[in-house]
Amino acid sequence: MMDNKYSMRSTRVTSSATREIMKVIERPEVISFAGGLPAPELFPIEEMKAACEAVLTESGEQALQYSTTEGYLPLRQEVVRRLEAIGIQTTAGNILMTTGSQQGLDLSGKLFLDEGDTIICESPTYLAAIQAFRVYNPNFVEVPMDEEGMLMDELEQALQAHPDAKFIYTIPDFQNPTGRTLSLERRKKMIALANRFDVLIIEDNPYGAVRFSGEALPPVKSLDTEGRVVYLSTFSKIFAPGLRLGWICADSAFVEKYVMFKQAADLHTDSFAQRITAKYIELFDLEAHIRDIRKVYLSRRQKMIDCIKAFFPEQVKHSAPEGGLFLWVELPESVDTQEIFEECLKHRVAFVPGRAFYPSRVKNNTFRLNYSNMPEEKIVEGMKRLGAVLKNSVNSGTAPVLDE
Amino acid sequence: MMDNKYSMRSTRVTSSATREIMKVIERPEVISFAGGLPAPELFPIEEMKAACEAVLTESGEQALQYSTTEGYLPLRQEVVRRLEAIGIQTTAGNILMTTGSQQGLDLSGKLFLDEGDTIICESPTYLAAIQAFRVYNPNFVEVPMDEEGMLMDELEQALQAHPDAKFIYTIPDFQNPTGRTLSLERRKKMIALANRFDVLIIEDNPYGAVRFSGEALPPVKSLDTEGRVVYLSTFSKIFAPGLRLGWICADSAFVEKYVMFKQAADLHTDSFAQRITAKYIELFDLEAHIRDIRKVYLSRRQKMIDCIKAFFPEQVKHSAPEGGLFLWVELPESVDTQEIFEECLKHRVAFVPGRAFYPSRVKNNTFRLNYSNMPEEKIVEGMKRLGAVLKNSVNSGTAPVLDE
Repeated sequence: MMDNKYSMRSTRVTSSATREIMKVIERPEVISFAGGLPAPELFPIEEMKAACEAVLTESGEQALQYSTTEGYLPLRQEVVRRLEAIGIQTTAGNILMTTGSQQGLDLSGKLFLDEGDTIICESPTYLAAIQAFRVYNPNFVEVPMDEEGMLMDELEQALQAHPDAKFIYTIPDFQNPTGRTLSLERRKKMIALANRFDVLIIEDNPYGAVRFSGEALPPVKSLDTEGRVVYLSTFSKIFAPGLRLGWICADSAFVEKYVMFKQAADLHTDSFAQRITAKYIELFDLEAHIRDIRKVYLSRRQKMIDCIKAFFPEQVKHSAPEGGLFLWVELPESVDTQEIFEECLKHRVAFVPGRAFYPSRVKNNTFRLNYSNMPEEKIVEGMKRLGAVLKNSVNSGTAPVLDE
Repeated sequence: MMDNKYSMRSTRVTSSATREIMKVIERPEVISFAGGLPAPELFPIEEMKAACEAVLTESGEQALQYSTTEGYLPLRQEVVRRLEAIGIQTTAGNILMTTGSQQGLDLSGKLFLDEGDTIICESPTYLAAIQAFRVYNPNFVEVPMDEEGMLMDELEQALQAHPDAKFIYTIPDFQNPTGRTLSLERRKKMIALANRFDVLIIEDNPYGAVRFSGEALPPVKSLDTEGRVVYLSTFSKIFAPGLRLGWICADSAFVEKYVMFKQAADLHTDSFAQRITAKYIELFDLEAHIRDIRKVYLSRRQKMIDCIKAFFPEQVKHSAPEGGLFLWVELPESVDTQEIFEECLKHRVAFVPGRAFYPSRVKNNTFRLNYSNMPEEKIVEGMKRLGAVLKNSVNSGTAPVLDE
């Protein structure tokens, strides 16, 4: 009845594939590798009780009251310390606390994108970033990747073809969905290209701290001498995603404008969540907690790769992430993973079909697996089920039919 | 250097007057009636400790994990109960939890507004709503008010002049900034006009539960038979604004689209904040808490009105709110309250000059006073200082000069 009331942008925003998939796979008998959730059994629940008690005792009135849009200063200072430890020299004045790093994406769209502006991104790229940016109706230009991340020759061609591109959107560490990491050489090349073509970089790094093997690489932001990298990150993967605590680190001129859009969007990020997080870090050992996370995720990732080798058909390719939450699987071109997904559901196992991660291309033979949220015995059982479906469908080259 | 990178909308978004004012008046010697903060000494801090402890013990993993975009079901059901108590028949499926009701404003802009679309609003209206909507570059049409709220003849004229208006934005109860309440007769007329002109209504009701005198009036939403009223509210004024918990109640077709924009904006509202609020309501007596708030605010409002009578010049008009946090003052046309504000700062007292509350008009002789956040003895002292400046400036008719 009210269909004439919507804005134009409303017609572009559709329910995310992941969201719809999540509904289907909520049945408890399904072993789901589709989500992107941290392992909840690692959440420091007893420590959080102590942090809540301390915050309410010491500063209850401030913790429950409206506060500044920029965020709680001691927490922003903690973010500065974390950034300095990975090579980003910055100050609290360059940090804006956001309602999860998802809000950093939305605010970046607001701040930089007019309709039709070009975004250059990895192919595939993070589904919820596509959703966030699509609100502002940009033109997505996808740059192919290999195991070392975005291909720099292809990026250069994309920049030549789109000299007015607003920004490169990249997830250099353990990318979602592929789990791949941009090599050091390519990081240097990316910032050099951004400087040469005068384009911004949105560096989205939610997973960087969850590196469980290999050597840490400097953030692209740490190589930035011109203030053109906007760096987004979050406490979601190292602490508690339910609290919705992310941050933007950017040039102060950008931060000033981000703050205005943030104020218009939700006034400020939850004061209590910010204070209990800062208090947890003060009272307990966040680094030890992150080490625990890394250990568990490494073990789960290894189990999943072992299962790929044991149960999947030989033609299947997969990434081998050194951190993060996700692993990427590529099947022969003839296979449609959406069809495999439907078949897998019948066999009570789930993943995210890859097509949703390509904002402008059609590519049907990939899917994403999450290992962080699943105990190892369930990984084994789920991968067995998945392998059986894959073997059938890859070998047949058509929609799989399993006689079970 | 990067000035060519911004979106067009970035050039429209400027730092809010309130925000700038807040910086000036943060000096502790200033008695500030400029804010819009609840009384923090009423926050139920000990009860919150119990609620945090209980939530972490009973459902710590879920409380710290990602959760659904719609919000925590028991809290949405509690919202439904609260809405039914004021005459709005609805279901949890019609409720979306938001990151404060400020996010409800931003999402409404996203959902309904294209550039140049007309919004009809009260004159003056809520500053942060102007900020939120301005991101989407609408045309603001202001409708004059009297003591009973928006004038319906003028609203009808505005609708005739702007038949394609997207929505009427109204704060019927204890409006911010004026403290005025829309009469029952006008509520009926407003919904009739909205039906006749086929226009939506965004009913923003953060203060309705904080009525301390007079009789409660039905929300415009309760008079809506066509699903054209979107109702926004919040726990900020009755519980704890720091937690950033608001909600949208709307027709299910609208809610479905709001959910998509909400997901793109910040995935979901803080799970822990939602659960501790629901737990507080389960374990303690929110209604008793609200009665305490009403009692304190009534007393402060009365003290402020007594002071107006005692210390302000006779020519000054003021509103007499029956609830909420704000009181509105109107001076003779010749007086500029921005100039008075500067003078008041020298005398260590502050308010918000009215001009920021008019999105399209220029009107300089009004200001807003907040009474909820100030103990009575400070109200007396602050109003004495303010009265002295006003007497001088109103009587002189020019910029005030006080010899102190």
